[in-house]
Amino acid sequence: IEAADAEQLHALCDELHPADMADLLGLLHEDERVRLIELLGGGLPAETLAELDSDIRESVVLALKPEKLAEAVADLDTDDAAFVLEDLDEEKRAEILAEIPVPDRIALHQALDYEEESAGRLMQREVFAAPAYWTVGQIIDRLRGSDDLPDRFYEVFVVDPTFKPVGSVPLSTLLKTPREVPISQIMSDRELRLIPVTMDQEEVAYLFEQYNLISAPVVDESERLVGMITVDDVVEIVHEETHEDMLAMTGVAAESGLSDSVIETARFRVPWLVVNLFTAMLAGSVVGAFGATIEQIVVLAALMPVIAGMGGNAGTQTLAVTVRALATKTLTFSNAARVVMREAGVGLVNGLVFGVLLSLLAGGWSLFMSGDPDRSVKLALVTGSAMTINLVIAALAGILIPLGLHRLGADPAVASGIFLTTVTDVTGFFVFLGLATIVLL
Amino acid sequence: IEAADAEQLHALCDELHPADMADLLGLLHEDERVRLIELLGGGLPAETLAELDSDIRESVVLALKPEKLAEAVADLDTDDAAFVLEDLDEEKRAEILAEIPVPDRIALHQALDYEEESAGRLMQREVFAAPAYWTVGQIIDRLRGSDDLPDRFYEVFVVDPTFKPVGSVPLSTLLKTPREVPISQIMSDRELRLIPVTMDQEEVAYLFEQYNLISAPVVDESERLVGMITVDDVVEIVHEETHEDMLAMTGVAAESGLSDSVIETARFRVPWLVVNLFTAMLAGSVVGAFGATIEQIVVLAALMPVIAGMGGNAGTQTLAVTVRALATKTLTFSNAARVVMREAGVGLVNGLVFGVLLSLLAGGWSLFMSGDPDRSVKLALVTGSAMTINLVIAALAGILIPLGLHRLGADPAVASGIFLTTVTDVTGFFVFLGLATIVLL
Repeated sequence: IEAADAEQLHALCDELHPADMADLLGLLHEDERVRLIELLGGGLPAETLAELDSDIRESVVLALKPEKLAEAVADLDTDDAAFVLEDLDEEKRAEILAEIPVPDRIALHQALDYEEESAGRLMQREVFAAPAYWTVGQIIDRLRGSDDLPDRFYEVFVVDPTFKPVGSVPLSTLLKTPREVPISQIMSDRELRLIPVTMDQEEVAYLFEQYNLISAPVVDESERLVGMITVDDVVEIVHEETHEDMLAMTGVAAESGLSDSVIETARFRVPWLVVNLFTAMLAGSVVGAFGATIEQIVVLAALMPVIAGMGGNAGTQTLAVTVRALATKTLTFSNAARVVMREAGVGLVNGLVFGVLLSLLAGGWSLFMSGDPDRSVKLALVTGSAMTINLVIAALAGILIPLGLHRLGADPAVASGIFLTTVTDVTGFFVFLGLATIVLL
Repeated sequence: IEAADAEQLHALCDELHPADMADLLGLLHEDERVRLIELLGGGLPAETLAELDSDIRESVVLALKPEKLAEAVADLDTDDAAFVLEDLDEEKRAEILAEIPVPDRIALHQALDYEEESAGRLMQREVFAAPAYWTVGQIIDRLRGSDDLPDRFYEVFVVDPTFKPVGSVPLSTLLKTPREVPISQIMSDRELRLIPVTMDQEEVAYLFEQYNLISAPVVDESERLVGMITVDDVVEIVHEETHEDMLAMTGVAAESGLSDSVIETARFRVPWLVVNLFTAMLAGSVVGAFGATIEQIVVLAALMPVIAGMGGNAGTQTLAVTVRALATKTLTFSNAARVVMREAGVGLVNGLVFGVLLSLLAGGWSLFMSGDPDRSVKLALVTGSAMTINLVIAALAGILIPLGLHRLGADPAVASGIFLTTVTDVTGFFVFLGLATIVLL
């Protein structure tokens, strides 16, 4: 299709849903992408721009002709328009903003002034509000007459004279109610959650999920209604934030995407690997300290990665469960002590199961190889106890590391996988080789 | 508060939002939970039931008086009612269903007949549809007259004479349009995605996210409209499914929650740990095979966990990125080859960086300890090369394992962390000790 057949491409791309078109652009190689946009005449539909993944957005936006881009941006609701422009450098952004009609431009400037990942960035300024004394009929007439409405909305926000939201009416309730009923009779404040412009988007997503919200009013410091956030924007954030947890656990910066260059991607992943190099050397030096023991009983060198590895994986299981529980707020400080005890219990149960299993395997194997029953029983005991102890410690580390990071106000997921494997390696090696030195030498 | 003061508890719980009440129940200990429900007279508001976490739902439902439960269930939309009842055993469920009025009971039976995690389970049967020739005015009049409507809805679905959905009209568009306009003029089929009752909930969540849907019609095999799914149900699924990925990577069954007992939880985590025990022993046996080498050069035992551990963590980074890319469908078979090459490139860059770093550290340390420059250079070369090779292999394993699982039709995340550490341990030990045997002995 890349054979420069502009007309056929036009026809094809017109049929695609904006979201699919955006995905197509994501799948293409950088050069193909620029070429496709050229063939489409240097422009893309506004909705497609709003759907682009953040890691390819910049390259697409730069490939567009500025006047086509400005036209498309002016078409979008403020939240989508800010999303399209946020990654550009100052100069380029100013150039595009200059081509946008003045009222839209002011709104966009204000939107871009809010911090990234805040409610202010997420909201659209187009919002419909009504005073409490209006009737259903008045509202419907007003809606029919107005053309400055948001593209889509799901609730009418009811405001007091200071423009503070005091209630909301879902459109379905509005439609079910006779014209003469005043809105104050059908509005409810139970479902209403005011969102300050400065709220972090993760917190916004939590409110939407917890209270099954479809849209919510955004207010400034004096609680005046300044915009609204709708659930379709939030669905994406829920997805993003949850994946961020998964990536953060392994020490990957969340901004890295599949379309970044090799060097860029490597750079995103290096920082925590450097930390990991030193923590791994710490674990290595524990082994080094027991060099004399290993020299005499080489079989220890073969068993020690089993004990450390099992600790690492069991601890990562606890870690994943804990990060999830913190994110969904089912783990809070009020029940932390109980959950920690429970995880320690799980670690103990697993530790006993696998301790017995591994000690039988190690003892049996040693007996088979050396024919020395006394020594084999001792090896079995050392191996089994080390496994049990390490799995208990792994469980404790798996829950205490994210809880500790959370208490310090840090992201509980960040690089926790690296901290965890350090703990399980160091204690696994130390306990196993230490016990072996005492019992077997 | 647990001091049996029923009245004060009543007042307190009445004030709570159903979602917060459900969270409170989740934070309580099993016994306290049963006690609280007793004090509240054996009943809970219907909405609170719908908000319960799945792992405590069963215990709460069993603590309620059957007649109070039946009353609450009859109040709910079918999707929430099915959700409350799905975990109960046959007998208990029949007992409750018997107390529910006949039409609701039939609907509930049908809902429970659909598979868990399918669109049929997720949908509510209450849905409003209109033929295409109606006018906006007719629809509004009909909505005002009817009382069998869903609690909340966001779109009117337009159906043809066979009850097949042919378009939809958002309520906001309906409200903006004069009464006399026929609905066929304002409906659109662009945003319409028909969801078959059998579709998996993960697929449903993907459609909602991809196309920014607020609600979608659910159809049976003959494409007749049978219900609808709304976005509030989907937000929770997006969250669940994404967390499932994170848990699956570490080999935790997703059903496990913070409120399960210690033994139950341990049982959930054991299966993959058993697999891990054998894969770890595989890695251990590689070390065992090089016992003679280690006996002569004990410092290798201290360096080998560093190389294996770095491989494990770097590979897990790639793994997390890949699982995410597969879930968001930014990685598909059409661009797989390119992304694999890119990850291999990232592995090579990181491998060179950390290979050089570790070889300098290992060589310097060896020189300091032994004073033998020739031997130290050799050790540095072996260590550095092993690190580089292992990081490239780690990167390849991190992307090829989930891609392979995906191609086999399995969940790309499932236990991939365990497979990955096996690969990085085995190759890390093998390459490092093998090279050492060749070069240093």
